[in-house]
Amino acid sequence: MSLEGKWFFELITPDLVMMYRVKSYIYSGKTPYQSVEILETDSLGRSLVLDGKTQSATFDEHIYHEALVHPAMLVHPNPRSVFIGGGGEGATLREALAHPTVERVTMVDLDARVVELARLHLPTHSRGAFDDPKTKLVHEDARGFLEQTQESYDVMILDLVDPLEEGTAYTLYTREFYQAALGRLNPGGVLVTQSGPGSPLNHKECFTAIVHTLSGLAAKVLPYSAYIASFVTPWTFTMAVADGDVRVPTEPAEVDEIIRERFGRRLRFYDGETHRHMFSLPSYLREGIASETRVVTDENPVFMV
Amino acid sequence: MSLEGKWFFELITPDLVMMYRVKSYIYSGKTPYQSVEILETDSLGRSLVLDGKTQSATFDEHIYHEALVHPAMLVHPNPRSVFIGGGGEGATLREALAHPTVERVTMVDLDARVVELARLHLPTHSRGAFDDPKTKLVHEDARGFLEQTQESYDVMILDLVDPLEEGTAYTLYTREFYQAALGRLNPGGVLVTQSGPGSPLNHKECFTAIVHTLSGLAAKVLPYSAYIASFVTPWTFTMAVADGDVRVPTEPAEVDEIIRERFGRRLRFYDGETHRHMFSLPSYLREGIASETRVVTDENPVFMV
Amino acid sequence: MSLEGKWFFELITPDLVMMYRVKSYIYSGKTPYQSVEILETDSLGRSLVLDGKTQSATFDEHIYHEALVHPAMLVHPNPRSVFIGGGGEGATLREALAHPTVERVTMVDLDARVVELARLHLPTHSRGAFDDPKTKLVHEDARGFLEQTQESYDVMILDLVDPLEEGTAYTLYTREFYQAALGRLNPGGVLVTQSGPGSPLNHKECFTAIVHTLSGLAAKVLPYSAYIASFVTPWTFTMAVADGDVRVPTEPAEVDEIIRERFGRRLRFYDGETHRHMFSLPSYLREGIASETRVVTDENPVFMV
Amino acid sequence: MSLEGKWFFELITPDLVMMYRVKSYIYSGKTPYQSVEILETDSLGRSLVLDGKTQSATFDEHIYHEALVHPAMLVHPNPRSVFIGGGGEGATLREALAHPTVERVTMVDLDARVVELARLHLPTHSRGAFDDPKTKLVHEDARGFLEQTQESYDVMILDLVDPLEEGTAYTLYTREFYQAALGRLNPGGVLVTQSGPGSPLNHKECFTAIVHTLSGLAAKVLPYSAYIASFVTPWTFTMAVADGDVRVPTEPAEVDEIIRERFGRRLRFYDGETHRHMFSLPSYLREGIASETRVVTDENPVFMV
Repeated sequence: MSLEGKWFFELITPDLVMMYRVKSYIYSGKTPYQSVEILETDSLGRSLVLDGKTQSATFDEHIYHEALVHPAMLVHPNPRSVFIGGGGEGATLREALAHPTVERVTMVDLDARVVELARLHLPTHSRGAFDDPKTKLVHEDARGFLEQTQESYDVMILDLVDPLEEGTAYTLYTREFYQAALGRLNPGGVLVTQSGPGSPLNHKECFTAIVHTLSGLAAKVLPYSAYIASFVTPWTFTMAVADGDVRVPTEPAEVDEIIRERFGRRLRFYDGETHRHMFSLPSYLREGIASETRVVTDENPVFMV
Repeated sequence: MSLEGKWFFELITPDLVMMYRVKSYIYSGKTPYQSVEILETDSLGRSLVLDGKTQSATFDEHIYHEALVHPAMLVHPNPRSVFIGGGGEGATLREALAHPTVERVTMVDLDARVVELARLHLPTHSRGAFDDPKTKLVHEDARGFLEQTQESYDVMILDLVDPLEEGTAYTLYTREFYQAALGRLNPGGVLVTQSGPGSPLNHKECFTAIVHTLSGLAAKVLPYSAYIASFVTPWTFTMAVADGDVRVPTEPAEVDEIIRERFGRRLRFYDGETHRHMFSLPSYLREGIASETRVVTDENPVFMV
Repeated sequence: MSLEGKWFFELITPDLVMMYRVKSYIYSGKTPYQSVEILETDSLGRSLVLDGKTQSATFDEHIYHEALVHPAMLVHPNPRSVFIGGGGEGATLREALAHPTVERVTMVDLDARVVELARLHLPTHSRGAFDDPKTKLVHEDARGFLEQTQESYDVMILDLVDPLEEGTAYTLYTREFYQAALGRLNPGGVLVTQSGPGSPLNHKECFTAIVHTLSGLAAKVLPYSAYIASFVTPWTFTMAVADGDVRVPTEPAEVDEIIRERFGRRLRFYDGETHRHMFSLPSYLREGIASETRVVTDENPVFMV
Repeated sequence: MSLEGKWFFELITPDLVMMYRVKSYIYSGKTPYQSVEILETDSLGRSLVLDGKTQSATFDEHIYHEALVHPAMLVHPNPRSVFIGGGGEGATLREALAHPTVERVTMVDLDARVVELARLHLPTHSRGAFDDPKTKLVHEDARGFLEQTQESYDVMILDLVDPLEEGTAYTLYTREFYQAALGRLNPGGVLVTQSGPGSPLNHKECFTAIVHTLSGLAAKVLPYSAYIASFVTPWTFTMAVADGDVRVPTEPAEVDEIIRERFGRRLRFYDGETHRHMFSLPSYLREGIASETRVVTDENPVFMV
């Protein structure tokens, strides 16, 4: 196989770089907030890259988005109102709307241009979700929105870009922000956030700090992880429930039963045994969390490479 | 950070290439059987690369080798004799010898030069294991050895290089070979083999075929996986027990108790919850296995990219 | 400076690869004849890449095209009719039309789509030349055209893609083709062809064979070279005159005088001293020519890497 | 051809990176002054890389070193004493000693370790020159040496590493240094320095400034260039003579005659027509020189990328 032609380089660490052979560039440009590439590769299909970081690819976006959305949505027995922070591709919205209990989803993503590009160039990510009458789409800073809204939600899903030093998303990973967000949860509500990479190489970049920060604010905090091939690394998610009485299922059969009741069908990625795989953390992640002392604040944020 | 200088390229797929920034090349050469690189990177420490494929790196070789060795060794209540096929770095040997029940380990690795280089340049991989009086090191083809030996073993650990088309190891991943190997197990014995990458991108390269092949030969076959950062992909392992009465623990507490009894201490990577993480397969691996029909034979081998 | 983002790889030799950091891809696609990329880099501006080979870039296309066109056009005292083979970007056409003596230019380029893309995306290459009433543009195989046409020309300029094994242009670098082409020259006419790379690494790929082949057919053959930064190598050109009495100037002052007479102004790259630089070959090129024995024929073509 | 394995990246500009496929790393390390790599590639043979910049490669070091040494040595009718600044590989020394008139060569190179490594790993560069009784090797700063020595020389050859911002060699490219150096020339003496890359992309980095600086100090300044394949760019050299009566030959026959008289044989790269090629500058170099206004001083040095 040849060396020639179009490659895309993405940093894993400053010493590990992933080269993707690009079949075609669908879009390259800048919005007021970030650089955007939509590119197509043989292995991963079509992917969205913001500020140099792959956000999701058609090959395995269902893994990322099911892992992000369904555990929290199924912990809640009857989620009717959902808040999504970020999630520009529309796939988080798609998965949230797939729950028949849902009556209203408020999605707040700063960057209208990314949503527009995703609707045009990544249509299978949203599959019509933006046109669903239950969807309310707002282009605003998610933090400003949550600090001012009077609404409250059964489930809040934070599908945000990574906290990069040169970006602005890092203010959506702090104690102050989480306090504001948890304050907009209805009783029995559940919050989940993507919480960065979870490989032995980089789980201390932000994952452990996010878990530790949320642990000071919520009754139960449940970190979990799933391998995302298009990121070439396990990715982490952190669920938080304010109310300690909320029950989180652990047995595969129980999860499978809840899925069956909610959907009447199987999901593509998430099921009972997958749940157990994701929520049983390998030792290094548990040890990283146990030894973490950082509380992320507006004054002392965390940044990813 | 700069582009300049020494990089090592490793293919994940023909479209995904990992670039490692190399601090130094410790050794580069060819043995009669394969090309060898021992290189040092900032992120992964010192790594061994055979025929262009990273075998292990000091940063996380304990994850790979504990995942390979301990589940099988702990399923057996009293492993006294161990066979290792391959395992040139000596770390599989090291982990096997760590079990106080072990009286004798026969390690058969074709390539004496790799063992010699690993002892010299990767001393923390073997940490003296080659000098242990319980160790018997043979440089021969593992298949030929097993077909001729009169010995039998409580545990057999196959830590082989991948089945590459241009290599010869592919004859160590066939039904005929597994039959020969299982035939050298003592009653109640356990066999485990590394079984290739387990990401959604490549789990059908050889993992599912190996599982399917062993399923036709052993009473119980237990595939599992662990993410190996230095491979930038989850890796799979497959355990097989000929005797259906052998009990494989599933509860974390039970595994932790067995570890405590055997070692009187905690291990570095492997513990009860890690066990559950590894043995609870994400849905795509289970579906890949369920839909697999290939039986790997000497006539119809499988190859990795 | 960062590693991340879009890179384009071009082979110089199988062991030397040039990486261009791409600002944007203007166009990527395939015509019936070849793959096309139009890309923008900071260093080289906008460039056209056909079948993985950079053809020209706005940064220095004037060097390539002046070097190709003007020496032959100025050797002829009064070039009125010009034939161009290839030259899809339109810059060879532009430079030919810049000669006030010219009444008619017939440009034969197989690939209409490349011409169309160049007009749209590389407008400064042609600067209106395609709309000049003196221009006759034909989309046909240049060889077929020349073998059938009744027209003849004062100057013939062969601005062809390289003779790649997988392409078809190699039939435009053979003795049979050159015979047909020289046969369409008017008395006193001059032919010039691009003749491939001229570095010590690769001048024997096709340059010396082209010179040797033309030497068997024309009274005078004058090879010359110019460094083209966007190719990161010196490039060669070979001029041939059928009539041995044609005088080729060698003194800088003489060339400068001819330029002044023809244009009444200085050119951007080509002048008397540049002429001497280009036509005085470094020793390895002369020795390569002197020791060359290959005659390129339809049966025994040459190919570039 | 495969992507896998060892590559070396070298920056041409921040947007153009050359990738060399490395067969083997002969040496990698750091001296007190710089990082050193000696590596072997298929295309270029064995090369020396200091602080990330290729210094010379066995494939074409004869081109670089003949171009640097012989023009100045042959302008002088009877060079008996030669000063070399830098030149650690020993090839400049080798070429200087090849002149039968030479009685004494003083080579001052700061970095003893580089000389030692070159003698060991690049023996064909020096071919015994370090053991020649005419050679006096000093490991000292060339500037300090010249400012203190009482010796004077017929020819001075500055074969220095590039003026990098992070290095110290930039003090050997300033008016103050050139004054000191020219002050150590015997009557009728000639100085020559390598003066950086000479492509349209980078000739203004330092070449034009060096020429302009020397022009204020010497009676005649003659810049010239030669393409060096292992640098993938033309390289420049600048010769300066303090005494305006020194005659520099320009006609190929004259140069060939001088070579014949001096050596009684032909050289490998340098001859009369090559001389004319090198000393006839393409227009952009002449224009770059003509428009240059920078005088390089200790206070206002120039740096290469």
